[in-house]
Amino acid sequence: MLRSAVDWRDGRLEVVDQTALPGELRVLELRTLAEVVAALRRLAVRGAPAIGVCAAFGVVVGLGEHQPRDLGEGLALLAGVTAELEAARPTAVNLRWAVRRVAAAARDQAANPEGLRRSALAEALRILDEDRASCRRIAEHGRAELASRQRVLTHCNTGRLATSGCGTALGVVYAKAAAHEPVEVWATETRPLLQGARLTAWELVEAGIPVTLLPDTAAGAAMAQGLVDCVLVGCDRVARNGDTANKVGTYNLAVLARANGIPFHVAGPLSSFDPDAADGRAIVVEERAAAEVRFLGGARLAPDGARVWNPAFDVTPAALVTAFVTDAGVLRPPFTDSIARALGGADAPGR
Amino acid sequence: MLRSAVDWRDGRLEVVDQTALPGELRVLELRTLAEVVAALRRLAVRGAPAIGVCAAFGVVVGLGEHQPRDLGEGLALLAGVTAELEAARPTAVNLRWAVRRVAAAARDQAANPEGLRRSALAEALRILDEDRASCRRIAEHGRAELASRQRVLTHCNTGRLATSGCGTALGVVYAKAAAHEPVEVWATETRPLLQGARLTAWELVEAGIPVTLLPDTAAGAAMAQGLVDCVLVGCDRVARNGDTANKVGTYNLAVLARANGIPFHVAGPLSSFDPDAADGRAIVVEERAAAEVRFLGGARLAPDGARVWNPAFDVTPAALVTAFVTDAGVLRPPFTDSIARALGGADAPGR
Repeated sequence: MLRSAVDWRDGRLEVVDQTALPGELRVLELRTLAEVVAALRRLAVRGAPAIGVCAAFGVVVGLGEHQPRDLGEGLALLAGVTAELEAARPTAVNLRWAVRRVAAAARDQAANPEGLRRSALAEALRILDEDRASCRRIAEHGRAELASRQRVLTHCNTGRLATSGCGTALGVVYAKAAAHEPVEVWATETRPLLQGARLTAWELVEAGIPVTLLPDTAAGAAMAQGLVDCVLVGCDRVARNGDTANKVGTYNLAVLARANGIPFHVAGPLSSFDPDAADGRAIVVEERAAAEVRFLGGARLAPDGARVWNPAFDVTPAALVTAFVTDAGVLRPPFTDSIARALGGADAPGR
Repeated sequence: MLRSAVDWRDGRLEVVDQTALPGELRVLELRTLAEVVAALRRLAVRGAPAIGVCAAFGVVVGLGEHQPRDLGEGLALLAGVTAELEAARPTAVNLRWAVRRVAAAARDQAANPEGLRRSALAEALRILDEDRASCRRIAEHGRAELASRQRVLTHCNTGRLATSGCGTALGVVYAKAAAHEPVEVWATETRPLLQGARLTAWELVEAGIPVTLLPDTAAGAAMAQGLVDCVLVGCDRVARNGDTANKVGTYNLAVLARANGIPFHVAGPLSSFDPDAADGRAIVVEERAAAEVRFLGGARLAPDGARVWNPAFDVTPAALVTAFVTDAGVLRPPFTDSIARALGGADAPGR
């Protein structure tokens, strides 16, 4: 079975370098805070849950680089490490959530500098375990919810390469396959970084699940021609009212699904729900470099004289979402109520 | 000023090899029927009007390759040349229209084998002149129609590189700029062949018109954030009811424009309207090779194990079109009436 995006093995933080796929399966060991931040920035590690787990261990790695002489120095170090990790990617709420949780655990339980790192590691390992368990629960809830839907259109990558477990939206697909239910995936390319082509198609081929790759431009035609039964995507941040930030192009798919009478589901852990965001207007969307659009590998795709607009995410209004498939069950409209109930539960983010 | 996609110079058919842009401006002379067909097939020449003009001269080139001994042999040759050209690209109605018009002119006016080619050439030159004049009329009608719209989102390439003149949808932009009206273009990349990035961005930069390139996935976000004032696209074939086949992704933009209250205009000559197609169901959409999606230049974007769905066009229902900007004026709903009136005029296709 394909390994997941991020793992902690024998005291080392190991990640799959997703920029090298589909050409090469390259595993990187991240040994310094700078390496962790760089891996997050250049999308060697991406996918909201994987970002969270990687950043959680990033705190541990960052603390391990120095030998604070006393608890005060240790706490200052912890604050610096935390700030640097939080700044690596502004949109994914899991990153902030995971980093703050590890930092809080370290602070609360550490009687001395060595204890800081030990407590941080224990909390990061709990986050890793929880992410894997969360993937399994999302997968099972989604399998039940989409039992009658065989042809699943998805966007970007939300599978083993996006989490430390079996995935979120793609985890549902894996659960259907594992239960011997018929399932096939229609994967959009997901320009500009082509995570659908490079990652989703690759991991589904590895898993032996039928996958059809299509340009983002062809998604409307696929829906209009009746080629897909549902749209299932992940999420980078969900506001309290259900407005959803996810990979740019998600909003296009939501509008097209609605226009074609196709259900549109969002899968993700409760840790992707942001109790601080009342609605989509509170979500900051990062813009990425023009070079991601102008070049591919060494090939020039567009002239330098053209300005480039390259937002990483878009915001899908809650009204276009059929339901959220979470580790705490399926949340249905009105989302302001169902999300509040879910976040009020014991295992919610912001804890 | 940038040359257009196709021209007849000193008895030679010259085209811009659009597969070499934006890296290189390479002009090809097409000397044989096989070269014309290959250029159309591999999209060295693309854009419905340019395809029509190129194919019209393709008849002339094909006739010039042989020395028929009598009129019967000449007519058989003409039939063969015509059939081969018509099969080069199935969706663009301009190709069939231009080839049949040239063939009919040749048959009607040719008293001998030499006369066949002479008559064909005269008709092809008329089509070239008409295409240029048609572009100018579309541009002026569009300038008046979209006088209040400054930020124009467009798809694929519909400019000098798509016609033998100033373009269709982009011709409107050139007319606005020539009249010193404020105008800027938001150009979608247009996967898989990236005609927006490679061609539209390039020709607008050459013309000194502000252009912002965006991934197809970001078109919805651009509309939702109020960054564009209208959507203006070309067309490959329009049915009698207004259903419109155009570059894949056009339908996505039409649905997104409607959802965001943005007008959606289609620009094209009457020769792109198909009197034989009652509605979109009559339009055959060609599927293109998987390699266009799997590779870019030498770079592999997706694994071989994934199936690829790569339709060249999609069909936008007439109900999503605000108006058609044609060489015979602006056509408004109900389109069944306005299109019938326009096609009933003197200069209609099918003539």
